[in-house]
Amino acid sequence: MAPRKEQQIFRATLDLLAEKGYDGLTVEGVAERSGVNKTTIYRWWPSKAALLAAALVEADLLTLEQPDTGSLRKDLEALVTGMAGLLTRPPSADVALAALGAAVRHPEMAAAARRFFTERLAGEAEIFERARRRGELPASADPLLIMDLLGGAVWLRVAFRGMPLDDGFAARAVSAVLDGVVREDGTCP
Amino acid sequence: MAPRKEQQIFRATLDLLAEKGYDGLTVEGVAERSGVNKTTIYRWWPSKAALLAAALVEADLLTLEQPDTGSLRKDLEALVTGMAGLLTRPPSADVALAALGAAVRHPEMAAAARRFFTERLAGEAEIFERARRRGELPASADPLLIMDLLGGAVWLRVAFRGMPLDDGFAARAVSAVLDGVVREDGTCP
Repeated sequence: MAPRKEQQIFRATLDLLAEKGYDGLTVEGVAERSGVNKTTIYRWWPSKAALLAAALVEADLLTLEQPDTGSLRKDLEALVTGMAGLLTRPPSADVALAALGAAVRHPEMAAAARRFFTERLAGEAEIFERARRRGELPASADPLLIMDLLGGAVWLRVAFRGMPLDDGFAARAVSAVLDGVVREDGTCP
Repeated sequence: MAPRKEQQIFRATLDLLAEKGYDGLTVEGVAERSGVNKTTIYRWWPSKAALLAAALVEADLLTLEQPDTGSLRKDLEALVTGMAGLLTRPPSADVALAALGAAVRHPEMAAAARRFFTERLAGEAEIFERARRRGELPASADPLLIMDLLGGAVWLRVAFRGMPLDDGFAARAVSAVLDGVVREDGTCP
């Protein structure tokens, strides 16, 4: 399928998820919204769950550019800023929160969410590989843990606490995880 | 109201939320499940949202004991272990995930979730106060950020990644935030 047509289908899928919730999302509705024939959609994705999983992982709307700034700190700050943007600005914020709400109620949606986070981590692995080659990160450091701390903090603050993320949030969160919080200035004496 | 009766009402409220979701939760249902008269419940909590907010904040089911081990590290490890237990073991896991799913769709439920997290942070503030008095934490350290990193990591891994939390998770997560990940052994030379 042509990439532009595929993105139209994904965008219609995610918009309908945000508007109607998982139960209200139908392949028929996606066909109508995207202007693509229903049988064409079914030929590529055999079910609503398969279509939604593909849309979550591949839609431009939820894609974060993988930063490559030359420093782990700046790469992670860019990732946190990107995640914060996705989770606070419509339409991506509505889509992400609807997906989250559906993931805890529908096993097939939970599988799509897991695939989304697994694909993300695979992309983020390069950031940590480069940092190791530059000597910025010891071999013992755990990229999954680092991403769970940073990504989790953004989710918790935005989705559960309903708090805004100020400009300094990314730098403070990344510094806490890279440098630790027990030293006054975040560096070794 | 007698504390035991109140806990019966809260527990019925949370169980019904987990079983039927926010839309299926009714004060009538809570009255039936708890054996407490509907008008009595309404006298104390004027709406379903008010009852649910009270249940989230005050129910024994979701209460974490505030640790006081004498060390910030052990206190935070105990908190993370406690959060992990709440989010992975039924019935509290079902309740927490149902509350999360509802919070992203219902504004009044989101307000209840915010109140829950605000009350938690107020309890956790004592842990950080004691740590400061013992000289374990500089004045610049931000308890809200520390709790968002740790609590967020637990949520992300359990609720979104669907991954188990092994026994060492709490110690590794707390060490990442207290000591940072950029030094091999987590301590200054």
